[in-house]
Amino acid sequence: MADPRFYDSKGPFSIAQIEQLTKATLKAGDREVQVWDLAPLDRATPRHLAYCEGPRFGAALRDTKATAVFVTPQMAGRVPEGVLALECVKPSMAFAQMAHAFYPDAALIWSVNQPPVQSISPSARIGEGTVIAPGVFLGENVEIGRMAVIGPGSVIGRGVQIGNGTHVGAHVSISHALIGDNCSIHPGARIGQDGFGYVNTPAGHFKIPQLGRVIIQDNVVVGANVTIDRGAMSDTVVGEGTRFDNLVQIGHNARTGRHCIIVSQAGLSGSAEIEDFVVIGGQVGVSGHVKVGKGAFIAGKSGVTRSLEGGKVYGGFPARPVEQWRREVGVVARMAKAGKSKTEQTDND
Amino acid sequence: MADPRFYDSKGPFSIAQIEQLTKATLKAGDREVQVWDLAPLDRATPRHLAYCEGPRFGAALRDTKATAVFVTPQMAGRVPEGVLALECVKPSMAFAQMAHAFYPDAALIWSVNQPPVQSISPSARIGEGTVIAPGVFLGENVEIGRMAVIGPGSVIGRGVQIGNGTHVGAHVSISHALIGDNCSIHPGARIGQDGFGYVNTPAGHFKIPQLGRVIIQDNVVVGANVTIDRGAMSDTVVGEGTRFDNLVQIGHNARTGRHCIIVSQAGLSGSAEIEDFVVIGGQVGVSGHVKVGKGAFIAGKSGVTRSLEGGKVYGGFPARPVEQWRREVGVVARMAKAGKSKTEQTDND
Amino acid sequence: MADPRFYDSKGPFSIAQIEQLTKATLKAGDREVQVWDLAPLDRATPRHLAYCEGPRFGAALRDTKATAVFVTPQMAGRVPEGVLALECVKPSMAFAQMAHAFYPDAALIWSVNQPPVQSISPSARIGEGTVIAPGVFLGENVEIGRMAVIGPGSVIGRGVQIGNGTHVGAHVSISHALIGDNCSIHPGARIGQDGFGYVNTPAGHFKIPQLGRVIIQDNVVVGANVTIDRGAMSDTVVGEGTRFDNLVQIGHNARTGRHCIIVSQAGLSGSAEIEDFVVIGGQVGVSGHVKVGKGAFIAGKSGVTRSLEGGKVYGGFPARPVEQWRREVGVVARMAKAGKSKTEQTDND
Repeated sequence: MADPRFYDSKGPFSIAQIEQLTKATLKAGDREVQVWDLAPLDRATPRHLAYCEGPRFGAALRDTKATAVFVTPQMAGRVPEGVLALECVKPSMAFAQMAHAFYPDAALIWSVNQPPVQSISPSARIGEGTVIAPGVFLGENVEIGRMAVIGPGSVIGRGVQIGNGTHVGAHVSISHALIGDNCSIHPGARIGQDGFGYVNTPAGHFKIPQLGRVIIQDNVVVGANVTIDRGAMSDTVVGEGTRFDNLVQIGHNARTGRHCIIVSQAGLSGSAEIEDFVVIGGQVGVSGHVKVGKGAFIAGKSGVTRSLEGGKVYGGFPARPVEQWRREVGVVARMAKAGKSKTEQTDND
Repeated sequence: MADPRFYDSKGPFSIAQIEQLTKATLKAGDREVQVWDLAPLDRATPRHLAYCEGPRFGAALRDTKATAVFVTPQMAGRVPEGVLALECVKPSMAFAQMAHAFYPDAALIWSVNQPPVQSISPSARIGEGTVIAPGVFLGENVEIGRMAVIGPGSVIGRGVQIGNGTHVGAHVSISHALIGDNCSIHPGARIGQDGFGYVNTPAGHFKIPQLGRVIIQDNVVVGANVTIDRGAMSDTVVGEGTRFDNLVQIGHNARTGRHCIIVSQAGLSGSAEIEDFVVIGGQVGVSGHVKVGKGAFIAGKSGVTRSLEGGKVYGGFPARPVEQWRREVGVVARMAKAGKSKTEQTDND
Repeated sequence: MADPRFYDSKGPFSIAQIEQLTKATLKAGDREVQVWDLAPLDRATPRHLAYCEGPRFGAALRDTKATAVFVTPQMAGRVPEGVLALECVKPSMAFAQMAHAFYPDAALIWSVNQPPVQSISPSARIGEGTVIAPGVFLGENVEIGRMAVIGPGSVIGRGVQIGNGTHVGAHVSISHALIGDNCSIHPGARIGQDGFGYVNTPAGHFKIPQLGRVIIQDNVVVGANVTIDRGAMSDTVVGEGTRFDNLVQIGHNARTGRHCIIVSQAGLSGSAEIEDFVVIGGQVGVSGHVKVGKGAFIAGKSGVTRSLEGGKVYGGFPARPVEQWRREVGVVARMAKAGKSKTEQTDND
């Protein structure tokens, strides 16, 4: 599922090779079968390798089209017919190991074999009327549309596409990303770097290669020093017309709808999703895998720890309907005041 | 009101042209009259175009010296004699449209017509004893004082002034800013980019051009990866001797007094104001249009949602006098403990 | 104690010179004695100058090996025999002044006398198989190991060491730092700049020179736009295998153990310490001089204001055991609900 514009595959690998590279074992089936790429269970097609971490992925496992799946011994019996079951204690770890094997150079955004002496790759295509400032680095096969601007010292990695009329400020770095028309990317924004994904082991944290992309639709504004990580297997997506203020963090696989506003220093954790026209106040945190419904408004400094219905105003930590939060703040203030009066009375006795 | 060192005006525009570029209509008066620039109601002088969004600007409307004003039909009767009333449903939107018309290239910080092949503009002036590191970009008419240092790869946009003895670190970007003497700007700081200002419409968020500046007085320290947006119509101002720790956000039109301290990851929203000797703890948020009095101390992680008197210590969210906040934290802890004992007793019954 | 790879000393200074440069006075002893460097009381050796701010440093004062010590008149009687007592009202201020005198150029990371025209210093050493991208700046005596990568436009200051296999992304700036093997430093990270340390005076904030380093052990990941300040006198240390997500702030002299995880937008204040395998959630703040024990887990958005035992889960602000915090959130919600029912009842009466 890794986009070949950004990633070079070392595959295919046979099941026998996979057994050597991981601690997984095939109990029954053909060891010569080859897999050509990695995918999540529900998006895998034949020739893909997937993994199933536990019972909550049972439905996805039942319907998977993958050629082979890493599973725990407990789940092995639920692998559908025709899919090879690679048994192991920690399927996510085996999967991460194979991701390293398939894409060892995922982090590199320019050619290693021949360090470029020019800053603009000859394979980069630049549209009419576009201005490239001094000190810009454009990697291989970068495509920039018409009437765009790339600011001084910005670094655009291999395969990145930037639409017509999009302005990129100074010192921006972009890799593994497709960016739409008429966007504005402010100085120091970081788009497309590795997300924060690890398999925890007693020996430390084992890196999960991040093989997705960042998709930024048209008319998006990205503030100064914002960080938008690329997806792990799927993509991080920013919907049309959405605006990020400065120092916002967008985790891997997070998705925003259209015309959202995210105020300064707020963060969306990995796989968080906000629907169209959501407003997120300053310094808000949204937990991973949580969904915020269309048109919701989250007051500044809130912490969103579970999914919230659209069309309402929320506040506090954990975030709850704003009237409830205000009542709670009020009741505590009254009690503290009452307690104080009592103490003062006692002191005076 | 836009500083010509930073902005090129496409004006003047006649009232007739303004009617074509916006949805506003002149009910009475001369359509051939021209306006030469934009300004807020209270700072406008003849030849300026202003706007009045609603009744709370009534006093400013009454006293304005503008040539023409965008107003709602409801407010049109209150436009003073001699001022042309341009009626429309959303004056802020019409004003934003004219700001785009006057200053279409506001975001550009180097010449578009002739992409520079040199990184240092021939019109830049550099004082004696000043060191310019490799990879620096200096735009047109940049002025840098004596004994200053500009770090590797930093980008200084058109018209920026930097005082004597000021040290700018690596990878800093500065535009639309006047910076005093003996300041220290740490790596990755972003100064002078567009603020976060939009007119909300059902079709999405319409950008308000940001035509102000950043003024940084003497002896200021700006931490690493700090972001300071330029003003919308007026300026963002940082007072003498003030120190910002890393990753601080300063919104457009915010103002700090002299000798303030703002600790890491705190943020001032747009038009927030803190007076002299204020201390703002780490991860504090200050809402927009709020004022914090001289010498106030705001404990870490607080949220300042309304103006606060000087000389006191505040904490919590919403920020309140620190003793009150502590009492509230205490009363909740005691109640939770009492509730727990009761539950345990019940469980034992 | 300042590492000569990063700092050039202007010392030694005689006691007589120190009296001229500060407001301190030697009441008894030899004014011709020289000191060669600065150090904290407990790490000073002969030929060092130290300072004692108040009674809580009494034990360190008693055992110090320093040649001379700044002390208040109140503490002067407790200076051990053989150590010269330099009396003054504010020893920390006198010490800061002498730090400026010893190391006036602490912030500079390249040669001032001869601005380099090349971006790679001839004294830099680069290991086999290492790739240096376009636009990189390498200062004097930089040492980079084998099979490392330095991304486009990155700035590596004088004396910095980077280990084998370490990948540095685009636009990273590193100074005053020693970095281990197989680390991954993401775009826009700022490592080694000045920490945030001031002596407060009525005339403003007097800068304390920051003369330490950043030590990053092997296999560390530093996220995009992270800021890690160097130590004041000792070092800021990041333990092996620790991972920082994007936009994290690490204050001067902070220390993390091995295999810690610090999620996005969290911050460790100066001299905070976290032991091995600690997990710090997103947007958490940890106060200065606080210690978090081995394996502790701090929930997102918490504020750690005092030292916490290892092996437990904490939440809230101030951070407390997570069950206690949940009970408190619950009790407030119930009371607000009860209060609301009562109000509604009254309204209906």
